[in-house]
Amino acid sequence: MPPLVTRVFPIVTLVRDYNRVSFGNDVMAALIVTIMLIPQSLAYALLAGLPPEAGLYASIVPIMLYAVFGTSRALAVGPVAVVSLMTAAALADITDQGSMGYAVAALTLAGLSGGILLMMGVLRLGFIANFLSHPVIAGFITASGIIIAASQLKHILGIDAHGHTLLEIVVSLLAHLRETNLFTAAIGILGTAFLFWVRKGLKPLLTRLGIGGGLTGIAVKTGPVVVVVVSTLVVWGFGLAGQGVKIVGDVPQSLPPLTFPSLSPSLIGQLLLPAFLISIIGFVESISVAQTLAAKKRQRIDPDQELIGLGAANIGASLTGGFPVTGGFSRSVVNFDAGAETPAAGAFTALGLAFAALFLTPLIYFLPKATLAATIIVAVLSLVDFSILKRSWGYSKADFAAVLITILLTLGMGVEIGVSAGVGLSILLHLYKTSRPHIAEVGLVPGTEHFRNILRHKVQTDPSIVSLRVDESLYFANARFLEDKIHNRVANDPGIRHVILQCSAINDIDLSALESLEMINTRLREMEVQLHLSEVKGPVMDRLQKEHFLGDLTGQVFLSQFDAMHTLSSR
Amino acid sequence: MPPLVTRVFPIVTLVRDYNRVSFGNDVMAALIVTIMLIPQSLAYALLAGLPPEAGLYASIVPIMLYAVFGTSRALAVGPVAVVSLMTAAALADITDQGSMGYAVAALTLAGLSGGILLMMGVLRLGFIANFLSHPVIAGFITASGIIIAASQLKHILGIDAHGHTLLEIVVSLLAHLRETNLFTAAIGILGTAFLFWVRKGLKPLLTRLGIGGGLTGIAVKTGPVVVVVVSTLVVWGFGLAGQGVKIVGDVPQSLPPLTFPSLSPSLIGQLLLPAFLISIIGFVESISVAQTLAAKKRQRIDPDQELIGLGAANIGASLTGGFPVTGGFSRSVVNFDAGAETPAAGAFTALGLAFAALFLTPLIYFLPKATLAATIIVAVLSLVDFSILKRSWGYSKADFAAVLITILLTLGMGVEIGVSAGVGLSILLHLYKTSRPHIAEVGLVPGTEHFRNILRHKVQTDPSIVSLRVDESLYFANARFLEDKIHNRVANDPGIRHVILQCSAINDIDLSALESLEMINTRLREMEVQLHLSEVKGPVMDRLQKEHFLGDLTGQVFLSQFDAMHTLSSR
Repeated sequence: MPPLVTRVFPIVTLVRDYNRVSFGNDVMAALIVTIMLIPQSLAYALLAGLPPEAGLYASIVPIMLYAVFGTSRALAVGPVAVVSLMTAAALADITDQGSMGYAVAALTLAGLSGGILLMMGVLRLGFIANFLSHPVIAGFITASGIIIAASQLKHILGIDAHGHTLLEIVVSLLAHLRETNLFTAAIGILGTAFLFWVRKGLKPLLTRLGIGGGLTGIAVKTGPVVVVVVSTLVVWGFGLAGQGVKIVGDVPQSLPPLTFPSLSPSLIGQLLLPAFLISIIGFVESISVAQTLAAKKRQRIDPDQELIGLGAANIGASLTGGFPVTGGFSRSVVNFDAGAETPAAGAFTALGLAFAALFLTPLIYFLPKATLAATIIVAVLSLVDFSILKRSWGYSKADFAAVLITILLTLGMGVEIGVSAGVGLSILLHLYKTSRPHIAEVGLVPGTEHFRNILRHKVQTDPSIVSLRVDESLYFANARFLEDKIHNRVANDPGIRHVILQCSAINDIDLSALESLEMINTRLREMEVQLHLSEVKGPVMDRLQKEHFLGDLTGQVFLSQFDAMHTLSSR
Repeated sequence: MPPLVTRVFPIVTLVRDYNRVSFGNDVMAALIVTIMLIPQSLAYALLAGLPPEAGLYASIVPIMLYAVFGTSRALAVGPVAVVSLMTAAALADITDQGSMGYAVAALTLAGLSGGILLMMGVLRLGFIANFLSHPVIAGFITASGIIIAASQLKHILGIDAHGHTLLEIVVSLLAHLRETNLFTAAIGILGTAFLFWVRKGLKPLLTRLGIGGGLTGIAVKTGPVVVVVVSTLVVWGFGLAGQGVKIVGDVPQSLPPLTFPSLSPSLIGQLLLPAFLISIIGFVESISVAQTLAAKKRQRIDPDQELIGLGAANIGASLTGGFPVTGGFSRSVVNFDAGAETPAAGAFTALGLAFAALFLTPLIYFLPKATLAATIIVAVLSLVDFSILKRSWGYSKADFAAVLITILLTLGMGVEIGVSAGVGLSILLHLYKTSRPHIAEVGLVPGTEHFRNILRHKVQTDPSIVSLRVDESLYFANARFLEDKIHNRVANDPGIRHVILQCSAINDIDLSALESLEMINTRLREMEVQLHLSEVKGPVMDRLQKEHFLGDLTGQVFLSQFDAMHTLSSR
């Protein structure tokens, strides 16, 4: 079999090696994941502002397409909280929730996101995701979790409220607080409390009862199913829908329909940036989960192929009544813990959900929306973690600034501005840091051949020689800084005859920096000072040799700083 | 005297030490610069789309304010070619040349630019200019020179033509070519040819006649004065103004007037970005000249104080009928070569120009605009230099891409888009390069304690140990790359028990990279592989010790790679 086939369709390798044991394990995992996914899919559709069945549809075809094109064996693809929130935020600017245009815009967003992911995969542009720094992601997820939880309070209380920033949501909630429906609030608050207890209290209880390991984790994850069943029975039994409790109501019994995204250039223009942000955020979330799970079994993930897998999944979502999807953390972990061995588990999950979409939707007619909101709130509050603020404050002020701005802008101005500002700021701070590199004046540690910072160590120096070690690659942003630094050091001290640049930490010299070095060389020559280099790395030396700089150098290139000092001191 | 005073007013130090010899030298330099500046100032006003007197005004008060606040002793501030072009481009979008609003917009642009420069100086933000890489500047100046020269052809031919991109200008010129005024064309072409000869032919001639050194350079620079005088006399003597030759005409005899920039928020909003670009480009041009001249006399330039000096000069220009100014290359070099010792030379130049504005303007009534265009063309074509394309191609493809895009976009879409795209692209390319750092797998050079790339050298390795040297600081953009690299290396080779990261070239580890290292450590632990570090730099170690990573590390931190190999191999 040619390798191209196995690269584009990683599943081929797996199909060849599939056996009965793997099949059994995959079916069992799929069953558990399906039960967990039903309420989750409905809830995330609600969060994205779409009818509940869209959540089921978004989990069926995408999961199968990912199984064919993706490289992770345990990743479960479908709607996730943050991407659903971003979908709602992107569509809010376009049209009203519930309108026909809204659903089409959601399909279009999924299609665009799929196209962007596919293109990034084919062009091997996965590295773009690396510009989302970990602190920015952590800050963004935390702020998104808060916004999502706040946005669901209206369902918990049974009132109307709108808004896409924390302030808008809170103001809107307060304005409508008097309209709270007490039955809805009772279901919502009890449901939330129960789910919190399942997360925090059930596991210790089960452990005390001697039930431990993976099974405990799965029991905890099925908590939402219990709440769904109980609250549906309560609403049905006591006729609470007549008391103003909002219910899911009629959901069509159908397999995913064949749908088409809009090709309107103006709609595509409006959705392009949100689709890009959703693609990047979704990819980052997905690849982290996939790699974490793969590492546990010493398996490999190919990030560029993952882009293609996720791209195919999103295009699938756009053609089957869905909305943007990605690899989710909790569902993938459940899948893995339940023993899924191959992507076939995903395919079986899709079958389970298709069965649910066809036959089970009448059972959720009386499911209160407050219950779905409770499952969302409990799920996302586990994402909220302000410890990144404390941690980054202690480790690096630049990282702290990036986190803080990301959190504040996400809460205050919405998800798109928040994450864009975070990325922009972290790039600027990185450039700023490298534009003012650490430059140490070094001297010889007596009795050794080592050179150390004269400010930190007792070292030998020669008044006619300045030795500088630059702890950064030289490029345009710091080239002039080095010019200034050397110029000022030499202009103030007429006794200097030699400047030695110790280049051991210089991994690259770009053309700007080369021209700065030439300028430094020329200016030093005019002050009758020689410029020398020492410990230039191989690749840097290769590049310098393409130019006339080494020929023009007033001084020499030494293999080691010790050679340089030794040679120049004895003159 | 408190040091603050001498820092904010660098001139104070000079005033104390001023003497008769310096005075004589400064007056002589001022005389030469004044003669050279009169045609240049008129020409750059024409280029900026303003009446000729604006060029004189822009050279008087700004030069005096720079003398008070600036740190360079020889820098001559006033209108320069590229900034004048950028002024014309910025104002073209706002209003028509010749309208009252145009002159006010020019004052406002100067005022905004002055404010931006002052603010950058006070906040010590001069480093922002460093993000203009040398290749981007070179490409931008070359493309600007071509656009300027093309834009002046209409004056040479005596026709109407408009446009701010090369294509627009050429199309417009061709459309009006039939309207060429032959008298104007004769003056323009002869003037241009003479000035080219002065540049290329006069110097060798003078040298052959035994007249050399600085004097030759000054003679060359006064070429434009000769053309101005001769062409004015010709137009006056033969009555060519009646034959359609466009002349400068009435210029008010006046000292610079007191003027005020507009405070209209919409105008300021439109001009803010162009003002920022003009400030940055002007600052970069000015500081390069200042530092080059200062180095020749072992003097110091303070970049942040330079921002304040240029800011004051531009605010002065906006209050006295001028337009954006900066330190110019040719005028500063003439000033320096003519023996200027202190900023007093600048003040004397200002007096000379004030005298010209008051008394000499009737003499230029018959000066043809074609002559001014000829001086501009000859001046800017010396800026055009495509060798940067060849040079960057040979040295670094990333630099080449940045130059090429800058030139093409500046020519094709105008100066603002050109320079912005160049800066953006060079930042992205830098980030891309550092996001895929060179990671060498290293082994021991037999008989030494040195470790080298296993692909380049014959070295000893141990099949259970992988030693990797990362030639880049670790930060968010390359953290995941390292994760993938290590994961793939280890996942493919079940015999590996130890991974050693040789950290000698790692100058910084940000929080994202730290989290990646933690992730690598965790994943390797799950594969039963230990992670070790060697040769961690002091500042990096200081930072790592603030966190629990070193405690969680499955392996050890070794002082040297040799220690690490020695210890782990013997296990």
